[in-house]
Amino acid sequence: MAGNEILGFVGGALTSLSLVPQAWRLFRLKSAREISLPFSSLLLAGIACWLVYGISMGLMPVIVWNAVSLVLSFTMLIAKLKYGR
Amino acid sequence: MAGNEILGFVGGALTSLSLVPQAWRLFRLKSAREISLPFSSLLLAGIACWLVYGISMGLMPVIVWNAVSLVLSFTMLIAKLKYGR
Repeated sequence: MAGNEILGFVGGALTSLSLVPQAWRLFRLKSAREISLPFSSLLLAGIACWLVYGISMGLMPVIVWNAVSLVLSFTMLIAKLKYGR
Repeated sequence: MAGNEILGFVGGALTSLSLVPQAWRLFRLKSAREISLPFSSLLLAGIACWLVYGISMGLMPVIVWNAVSLVLSFTMLIAKLKYGR
């Protein structure tokens, strides 16, 4: 794997996996008042676009990590809808 | 601009600009207890990696939007450090 591809994988790992402690925290606190609904919904839509972009360009780090992020950001959106009031 | 490049720009616009209402909300509520510190710090580190990846691969949408996201996620980290206790 080339150096810049490693960087893409590391960047993707960090940005995607950062959503794990965030989603976890919302479910643990059973509260998501501070989370912005436009944030969680625009994020999900944007990640879906990135995923299609990655597939069309054949960029592996973009594909893999946006697929992971899609699941995680969907989980965060559920937390917002469940605990956000 | 090619179709997939437009998709990259739209995806980047959505994921980056989603941080605007989120950071705004934290400063407005003056509270960031629900925001995870690992989330805001890993996100910032990951975006920095993506920016270098984009520069090294010459991917304009990746460069432009990660530069914007870097500023916005730094703002969110400041909100967490200021209001997060």
